[in-house]
Amino acid sequence: MMEHNLEHTISLLTRTPAALNALLRDLPEAWTFRNEGEDTRGEKSWSAFDVVGHLIHGERTDWMPRARMVLQFGETQTFESFDRWGHVRESQGKSLEQLLDEFARLRSENLGELRALNLRPEDLERRGRHPALGVVTLSELLATWAAHDLTHLHQISRVMAHQYREAVGPWSAYLGVLQCAGHSSP
Amino acid sequence: MMEHNLEHTISLLTRTPAALNALLRDLPEAWTFRNEGEDTRGEKSWSAFDVVGHLIHGERTDWMPRARMVLQFGETQTFESFDRWGHVRESQGKSLEQLLDEFARLRSENLGELRALNLRPEDLERRGRHPALGVVTLSELLATWAAHDLTHLHQISRVMAHQYREAVGPWSAYLGVLQCAGHSSP
Repeated sequence: MMEHNLEHTISLLTRTPAALNALLRDLPEAWTFRNEGEDTRGEKSWSAFDVVGHLIHGERTDWMPRARMVLQFGETQTFESFDRWGHVRESQGKSLEQLLDEFARLRSENLGELRALNLRPEDLERRGRHPALGVVTLSELLATWAAHDLTHLHQISRVMAHQYREAVGPWSAYLGVLQCAGHSSP
Repeated sequence: MMEHNLEHTISLLTRTPAALNALLRDLPEAWTFRNEGEDTRGEKSWSAFDVVGHLIHGERTDWMPRARMVLQFGETQTFESFDRWGHVRESQGKSLEQLLDEFARLRSENLGELRALNLRPEDLERRGRHPALGVVTLSELLATWAAHDLTHLHQISRVMAHQYREAVGPWSAYLGVLQCAGHSSP
């Protein structure tokens, strides 16, 4: 395991839009618009399309707005709660290809802004206040931005693999992704 | 869930090399060469680099060779066992960038060969013999080829996210990928 490294974080954040674009653009909708059904509480699970909408919503309302709050207000002001269903609004009436373009554009703008902050090691130790987690550091926030991309790439692979759960026949026993229980966050 | 659809399978198989290339090429080695440590049996887990080597090994020895065996010999001849550690040989002395190029080239050749077979629905029902799973169909084999890409994209996301397990601080509770137990196949 490694400590947080801002250049490593930016390297990863830079690549996610192109990776999702290469994986999802013009793929048959049977892969991208289907989900994993309803969970035990009857809540609709997400399709790859929903996930890209969610990533866009995060670019608009989560990562850089919170980073700015840490730098401006420290622990004195609590972050806005993130709306886990905010992507429904973002995605309405759009195609997956439009969402992929929008995600790439917003991510690029946000990374431009992040680089322009020229954060020094001591800035990364600055603290903010999360509505549920309490005190967090800017370093943790930025590391989470990168890990959050990976959690959703992990989810997209799982949701897509689920569509072939029956089609693979007895091989389902060997495919780790089909044993993954989802681990959805609260 | 959908039934197996050969065009959907090919659509996905076509995209995986470009998706991995966009995600991994020139990423710092801290992301791509680290693994998840040893498992409970002391067996070394895989890094993203190892996974790309494993995908190459599958292109050479698993998917199309088995498809040809089904079409030529049906159930009368058992598939060769797949060597889960065959990638070590494939990867030796190579850079990740070389492996990504090699994976893209082999996948493209194999898909050319698959398309040239002009498989009809009745061909997809033809049966072969797996050394552990017994009788399987060509349809199941090809669906598994696609789902196997997804299982390893799922794994790569998890292995990379693991590197930031500490760096994300209290957010680890919200990141599903960090709760994923691996579900490694036998």
